[in-house]
Parts: sequence; C-alpha cells; structure tokens
Amino acid sequence: MHSIETNNSIVHFNQKVYNELNNYLKKTQPSKVFILTDTNTHHHCLPYFLTQIDYSDTLIEVMEMPYGESHKTLEICLGVWEALSEYLADRNSLMINLGGGVVTDLGGFVASTYLRGLSYINVPTSLLAMVDASVGGKTGIDLGHLKNHIGVINEGSMVLIDAHYLKTLPEREVISGYAEILKHGLISSLDYWETVKQINFDNFESLADIIHQSVKIKQSIVSEDINEAGLRKILNFGHTLGHAVESYFLNRDEDNALLHGEAIAIGMILESFLSHHTVSLSEDALYDISNVLISTYGKTSLPKAAQNEIVKLLIHDKKNSHGKIQFVLLQDIGQPILDQTVSDPLIYDAFDYYNSL
Amino acid sequence: MHSIETNNSIVHFNQKVYNELNNYLKKTQPSKVFILTDTNTHHHCLPYFLTQIDYSDTLIEVMEMPYGESHKTLEICLGVWEALSEYLADRNSLMINLGGGVVTDLGGFVASTYLRGLSYINVPTSLLAMVDASVGGKTGIDLGHLKNHIGVINEGSMVLIDAHYLKTLPEREVISGYAEILKHGLISSLDYWETVKQINFDNFESLADIIHQSVKIKQSIVSEDINEAGLRKILNFGHTLGHAVESYFLNRDEDNALLHGEAIAIGMILESFLSHHTVSLSEDALYDISNVLISTYGKTSLPKAAQNEIVKLLIHDKKNSHGKIQFVLLQDIGQPILDQTVSDPLIYDAFDYYNSL
Repeated sequence: MHSIETNNSIVHFNQKVYNELNNYLKKTQPSKVFILTDTNTHHHCLPYFLTQIDYSDTLIEVMEMPYGESHKTLEICLGVWEALSEYLADRNSLMINLGGGVVTDLGGFVASTYLRGLSYINVPTSLLAMVDASVGGKTGIDLGHLKNHIGVINEGSMVLIDAHYLKTLPEREVISGYAEILKHGLISSLDYWETVKQINFDNFESLADIIHQSVKIKQSIVSEDINEAGLRKILNFGHTLGHAVESYFLNRDEDNALLHGEAIAIGMILESFLSHHTVSLSEDALYDISNVLISTYGKTSLPKAAQNEIVKLLIHDKKNSHGKIQFVLLQDIGQPILDQTVSDPLIYDAFDYYNSL
Repeated sequence: MHSIETNNSIVHFNQKVYNELNNYLKKTQPSKVFILTDTNTHHHCLPYFLTQIDYSDTLIEVMEMPYGESHKTLEICLGVWEALSEYLADRNSLMINLGGGVVTDLGGFVASTYLRGLSYINVPTSLLAMVDASVGGKTGIDLGHLKNHIGVINEGSMVLIDAHYLKTLPEREVISGYAEILKHGLISSLDYWETVKQINFDNFESLADIIHQSVKIKQSIVSEDINEAGLRKILNFGHTLGHAVESYFLNRDEDNALLHGEAIAIGMILESFLSHHTVSLSEDALYDISNVLISTYGKTSLPKAAQNEIVKLLIHDKKNSHGKIQFVLLQDIGQPILDQTVSDPLIYDAFDYYNSL
C-alpha cells in the first residue's frame, strides 16, 4: 500500500509505519517526545507502540487523558498544556497522539497552539480516526455542547495508520467508524458505495484495503481545499443533522450518548430524505441508503420533543452563513451538492420518514 | 504614507484606514461584525471608531474585556468564545480587535480558533500594538504566568493604524511602546537607532512617520519568516530576559507590574551587556544603549532574590531548544545574531552591571 502525500503531511500504512517514524525521529532529533494517550489506548495500544519505536536517543513523556467524547474539553486541553509546560516542552519537541478521534482532535489542537505550534504526528487507533479524524488537519475541542467549535486547521507532520490497533477495539466502535467509510461511498462514487456497503469486517486484509481507499478519497478532497472554502464541505454530508443529533444525546445523558458514527448514520438518512425531496436523489437510492444504514445501526427513538431540540441545535452548525443552515445534499449517489437550504417543515418530514423505517 | 502589504495581510495608515475598512465591509459582506474592546478602549476609542465606519448594512456586536495584561487569560478567551456563540457568529463573521496588545493578541487568538478560524482585523490603539503586537500574525494568551505560551501564528486580513488614538493614551503607555521602536533601531541599522533615540513625542507628524518606518521594518522581517524558523527571531532582542523580568513582576504583584516595554528596556540593557562580553558589541555602543534606556525608563530594583527568580523563569522561554536558553545578541548596533548561549554567571554579571548604572 502506498503512502499518500499532501502539501504538508504524509500518511503511511501498516507494515512501514514504524520504520517511517523511526526515520523521522532520527532525522528531526526532537528535544523530547510527548505521547498523548487516553485511559484505553494507554492500556491497549501504548505497550505495543513503545516496542516498535526506537527512542534510545530521545526522552519520552507519556500523558494520559480520560477516555471519551465528553472529555474533548478546554479543561483537558489546559491539563495537557500544563503538562507540556511542566515537562519543559520546547519548539523542537514532538507530540504523538495515540488514540481515537478525541485524542487526535484534542492533541492536534494542543500541539498547534502550544508555543504557537509544535510538530505532531497522529497514530489513530480507532476506525473513525483512521479514515476521518486523524487525516486532513482539522483539530478541535467542544465548546460546552457545541461540537468542535474551537480549533484550527493544521496538518500534522505524519499520520501513521496501523490497522492492527483495530483488533483492540470493541465492535461497536468499529461499526461507528464504518459510517464515515459509507459516507465516502455516498459522496465519491456508486462503485465505492457498492464496495463498502458489503464490507466484511472479519477479512482483515480487505478492511485494511478499504481504509487505504477511504483515506485516499479524503486526502484528495482535502488537498484541493484545506480551509473548507468549498469542495471540502462535501465531507460534511450527514453531519449537519448528524452533529445536532450527537449534541442532543450528549447533552441529555453523557453516559448513554450515541457514538459519532451512530449519529452520523441517522444524519445521512435524514439528509438523503432531504436530497430526494429537494434535489434529484431517486427514491430507489434513498431506500438503498436507508436500508444499509438501518440494518447496520438499528433505529434510535426520535420523538417530537427530541426533534425540536435537534432543530434548535442546527443554528450553531459551523457551515451556516448569514443565519441560514447550509446542507450538503446528494443529487445522486456519488454526486454531492453544496450550500443547499431546506425548509423547516421538510426537516420534520425527514424525522417522520426516519421514524417510519 | 503607503500601505504595507505581505502575503496575507495589509497594513493601512492614518487618513485612509476607515475608507479601506468600509470598502472591505462592502466587498466581503460579513454576516456580523464583532468588535472586541477593553474597558479603556470601549470608553475612549469606540465612540470615535463607530462614527468612522459605515455599518448600515451590517449587524454589529460590541464585546468588552477588562483592561490589562493580567487578563490575557484562557478564562477571558472562553468568555469571548461564548459571546461569539451566543450572538451566533458564523464563518462569515468578522472580528475587529480595537485596543492595545492584550486585545489584539487575545482577539486574534479567539478569532483564529473560533469555528477553526474567522477573519479578523486589528485596530491597534496603543503605540506598542501599532509598532509591534498587532502586526505580524502572532496571537496568543498567557498560560498562568508564562507569557504568550498559547497561541497561533495567523495574520489578520488587515491592520488599521490610526495614530490619533495615541492621544487617548497615558504617557507611560506611549513610553512603553517606544521600547519596541528603540529595539527596531538596535536590530536594523545605526541610522534608524540614531533617528529613534531622539524622537520628539510632541511632534505628532514625526511620530506617525516613525510608526510607519517601524512597521515597515517589522513587516519586512516577518514576511521573510512568518513561522520564526530563523530571521524573525531577531525581533526577540531584549525579550528573552525582558519576558522573564515581566513575568517576575507580574507574578509578584499584578497591580504594580511593569509594562511590557519597561521590562523589555531592562532586557535590552542586560542583553547588550551579554553582547559586549560574548560577541563584538563595543563598550561605547553598550554605554550609548544603556544611557538612552535608563534616561527614558529609569531604573528598577533587581536584588539577588529577584535575579534568581528571573533566571529560573528563563527556562520556559519559547526560543529555547533542547534545554538551552537561546539569546539574540548584537554584534553591533544594527547587526543582530541568533541562537547564542551564554553562561549563568555572565547573566548574573549583567544584573550587576544594570544595578551599577
């Protein structure tokens, strides 16, 4: 599998990642290496990671943050900044973010803002982080319950994708990450959608291959439009309503919140319904998408009261402009269209459609 | 006076600034304009500013933060982020930072990180912010007592320098900003040093001209090296010890802390002493620099206990690498040299020299 390069960053895959990392350490001679983990990756991934890297010449400090979406906060950021300060990180220090999307998003933000920017490397350990969060330079934390509201766009020096970490992951986490792969199908081509909708998670080689293809799709979009002026917005398909659904459940009960991909799956069904009714997505395509997503993710109860709260949350979506909610919709599978507005009643119709499935 | 342009940003001066701003507003049609002020600029500068801009088509929200260096904190950032969220800032919103260095540094950081980056414009109202802080894209806040430890480098869309705001400024603030102008002399040329050391603050036209020249010097350095990989470090002359002196007094007694320029003036004397003893700065030049600075800023008591604390603080300087403290020194007036290390005893000798003046 080939490495995928953009202007500022490079993604390496599987067998070669530790060689590449060791070469990088030898070449750049960081003054110290700070590895950010969470409670889970500290236990399940760090021991293996440390056997793979050659740090005879380098001082390593390991930092651990609590696991989970509800810890992607300014408070945790402050803790990591203070740890960097206490252990005397300087501008030649390197940060390695070893974990899922929360660790790579928060760690990337911390590194990008400490002393106005340290180098950092992402080592994603969840499927979601491998195919989405760790790639493309979006870093960020939540502002209260507003997802990723504070952050910067700054690609790390490298992303090292070793699919073997997926073996440490609970099945529910893998399935959650799969939602972003399905999204890559819907926004890129009918061919890729047909491939990914029949993925076999037991076939490790084919999964690793799909990860590679998905990263390639994401990187080719990002490298055209790193600052999300236009094209990059297509990666937000399913995310306008999906983020609002995710925020709603996170606000209500942190412990039983939906995983990111589970919320995005709901968002993709809702936004496919909007696509069918406002642009040209066919009824067959809508049913196909709905069937794949419902059979993978099941259904979540969304009564009227929940719908009202979710619609209220839409107003904070990052893609909004001049007070208008902007959707990415599908003209067909593989044919996204940007900056679409829809009426509020149609959004409620979409919820009714979802509930009727 | 000509505008000064870099890759991403443009600085306008005096008469033309409000025209330029009004043209910018007409062209970009921001969804909302958020003006960040502090207690002082809200009172002394905002009323005039509002009479100059044409906002008939634009919604304006004014935000006010408390005045002073001790408020350049994460807590205030959070307050401004939350205000942006409450008043529904979106990616097409514009932030205008109307104030001294604290407002432009913190406001630039808030804008650069809100929704992963809003456009912003600096309108510096202090001499320090006009010739230094508001220009060149360094944004940041303090981490506890560590100055500017958290931030990003991101130039705003424009800097609008209207020297008339200086008339609202206490004399002590003007003199503080003058330290950065003196620094521009020391790092750029003997000619400019001779010009700026005899500045006449009562002659408004000549002061406006000096501001223009100083911004030109700073911008020409920054545009060669925005990320401070090399050349830009020369702007830190006087700042390695100066920042530590500033932090020391800020830690001790926030209300009687030194102003930034007052601390940097001490730093420039100390680092000129180091320059004389380790590189080729002549004794005459050292005396010339010391005389100008002492006659402008007077002397501050730095007993042994203070010296010890200040030396301890040096270890957190942002230019350090691999545990070594890196100084910018002067081979001669106008001839800075980067990445110099000196022995601890020589630093204590520099304090003795300062105390003997």
